[in-house]
Amino acid sequence: MSIGHPPVVTFLSDFGLDGAAAICHGVILSLCPDAQIVDIAHTVPKYSIADGAFILASALPFMPIGVHLAIVDPGVGTQRRPIALQARRGDLLVGPDNGILVAGADALGGVVEARELANQELWGPTVSSTFHGRDVFAPVAARLAARTARLAEVGPVLEVAELVQPPVRRALVRDGWLETEVIYVDSFGNLRLAGSEADLAQLVERNRRPLGLTIELPDAAEGTQGLESTFVATFGEVDDRASLVYVDSGGHLALADNRGNAAARLGATTGTRIRIRAR
Amino acid sequence: MSIGHPPVVTFLSDFGLDGAAAICHGVILSLCPDAQIVDIAHTVPKYSIADGAFILASALPFMPIGVHLAIVDPGVGTQRRPIALQARRGDLLVGPDNGILVAGADALGGVVEARELANQELWGPTVSSTFHGRDVFAPVAARLAARTARLAEVGPVLEVAELVQPPVRRALVRDGWLETEVIYVDSFGNLRLAGSEADLAQLVERNRRPLGLTIELPDAAEGTQGLESTFVATFGEVDDRASLVYVDSGGHLALADNRGNAAARLGATTGTRIRIRAR
Amino acid sequence: MSIGHPPVVTFLSDFGLDGAAAICHGVILSLCPDAQIVDIAHTVPKYSIADGAFILASALPFMPIGVHLAIVDPGVGTQRRPIALQARRGDLLVGPDNGILVAGADALGGVVEARELANQELWGPTVSSTFHGRDVFAPVAARLAARTARLAEVGPVLEVAELVQPPVRRALVRDGWLETEVIYVDSFGNLRLAGSEADLAQLVERNRRPLGLTIELPDAAEGTQGLESTFVATFGEVDDRASLVYVDSGGHLALADNRGNAAARLGATTGTRIRIRAR
Repeated sequence: MSIGHPPVVTFLSDFGLDGAAAICHGVILSLCPDAQIVDIAHTVPKYSIADGAFILASALPFMPIGVHLAIVDPGVGTQRRPIALQARRGDLLVGPDNGILVAGADALGGVVEARELANQELWGPTVSSTFHGRDVFAPVAARLAARTARLAEVGPVLEVAELVQPPVRRALVRDGWLETEVIYVDSFGNLRLAGSEADLAQLVERNRRPLGLTIELPDAAEGTQGLESTFVATFGEVDDRASLVYVDSGGHLALADNRGNAAARLGATTGTRIRIRAR
Repeated sequence: MSIGHPPVVTFLSDFGLDGAAAICHGVILSLCPDAQIVDIAHTVPKYSIADGAFILASALPFMPIGVHLAIVDPGVGTQRRPIALQARRGDLLVGPDNGILVAGADALGGVVEARELANQELWGPTVSSTFHGRDVFAPVAARLAARTARLAEVGPVLEVAELVQPPVRRALVRDGWLETEVIYVDSFGNLRLAGSEADLAQLVERNRRPLGLTIELPDAAEGTQGLESTFVATFGEVDDRASLVYVDSGGHLALADNRGNAAARLGATTGTRIRIRAR
Repeated sequence: MSIGHPPVVTFLSDFGLDGAAAICHGVILSLCPDAQIVDIAHTVPKYSIADGAFILASALPFMPIGVHLAIVDPGVGTQRRPIALQARRGDLLVGPDNGILVAGADALGGVVEARELANQELWGPTVSSTFHGRDVFAPVAARLAARTARLAEVGPVLEVAELVQPPVRRALVRDGWLETEVIYVDSFGNLRLAGSEADLAQLVERNRRPLGLTIELPDAAEGTQGLESTFVATFGEVDDRASLVYVDSGGHLALADNRGNAAARLGATTGTRIRIRAR
């Protein structure tokens, strides 16, 4: 499978909504006038590689095969490497080497080729020290989408094993608790957790539903210990404002308040530890 | 009139800006590569059918004839019906049956056909319990836009009279007051009200302008009783920060502060009651 | 150079994200179905001509030659003139005459022709008193992009010298201090300043880097006097949270905290005065 016509270019960044992402659109359309640009998100929390990796990996499997630009770049202007990856599905990913692109490629079957962006002929006409999205990444992504450059031309091959890896968070069962953590807080305030339904199943005899749960946030204030929740298939199975645990649309466990905002109520953010036990 | 080429797909949701709406873009472009997607809004207050209905009805008359996807779905995963409507102008609307689509269709001449989405062959490959935007609504909308499915194929006909209706808010004149309520707070903090200039005209001899008004918010703190305002044609007719009542771009009465934020100053939100009297 | 096919229409406003900008998209696509619309920003601080001018001037040089719609319009409904400009590069700009369009055109080589929008045949079917984006500016921009109208048809020529000019802010050196002010706060909280590296160079012997600086905010609280910072090429040259002065991607001096938010820490906004001295 390969990139279609017109080529899709997806774009994720922490640039916010005040023009920087739009400037990259302009660069892309100048070099690839028929690009169909899909903005995945530009409100990734500033510098948060973990959040960017979660959003990118959630989105890419649903995108057409294309070129995927992902720029959360706290190291801009330092020695971190600018890279391009090819994923097994046929997609190309462009951005800094900080783990986000690998997370995205993993969601597309894994990295099959990695190259460092070293061929400055494919970059913009000038290169600032603070806006490589505009000056390096968008021009290379646009040329790859337009097929005016091939992956082999962007720079030398990198060992896949040398790439910076995305943060890994695992759930584990210990002393009758599922110990996990928040890997993402979505815009509804739902807490996406490490771990799957299979992890939760280790706590209980199978197929018992609805399943009463006790939740603890070891790092939070006392009032958020011993929280009662229920494992259900969907929000409508619990009362308004009641807590539920469910399998989210990406296959992760998630903790939410029905029609409420669990993150705000519990004071939880990406990285907050969560313990879950069957009642 | 019918949907043009390339087909326009508009999209309104309360999904926020962190990737869920973009995933639906990916689904749409995968099934309808030449779709021209117009994002109407994705920052609709969470679960607010009233706000979603207002924004959709305001926007659709200005959109090309197309497929309109509108997803504010507090009942996802419950028995609420997924539907598609045809409006008199020729547009198709897709989303949950909760009143928003009817509000949108009414702005396009009314509903001429309604069907329940029951044909799962037109849905995505897997259906989660929490993200029907990705798994049900976007795939059906995309296939309708691409003409790889016709409305008659999505599922059985529904009686139009059976559809969930949007919230109705009316202005009425009583004891010399126009009693109305806030139907929407726009991003400037202007309060869009139920009622039209004709309603206001019942209070006074016609054509008297500028017309001095007294405003009361019966539910608000004492300080917001007896507010002085003026009925004028446009903002520039009153001083900076002064209160005005005007006919908004959708034909509703609206209450604003010139270059200020009336909603913040008055503590008003969607649903706040407003009483208006001529001075 | 002239506008390409498909025509690019860029769009900047302070309309926010709740549907008003989308309505203008609908109007544009109705009149110019193949328009490729690039949203530059719609979250410009309400009514802020200075912020709109900064964002537009930063973005336009990176956009394809096109039609640029820029609407921050505190004077809607008053006597301020609706205008269209041609820039030296070949672009057309459409919006109210309040300085923003001139700022944008200056970034494209300057204004070569100015006209007042007076030909109401090119406007929308009805003209509200509060939403000229929908009713006047978007229709004219769309017709220019579609080439169903030429610039000469929009209305009479205006003297370029008569156009409202954008706010000018200059840096000046006095008593060993570079006196400047914040011309824009970007979404990272970085303070973009009037003045360039050449201005800063007047303070010191050349090429001394890293260069220790003392910063003062004359209008701010006492705690923000005597701030230590360093002039460096890029963020990575200072510690996390440390203050730096750098040349931003637009060639302006800027004051930032590495991986922090300088605007929030210092309480600075557009217009805040800043004094810089070499240590």
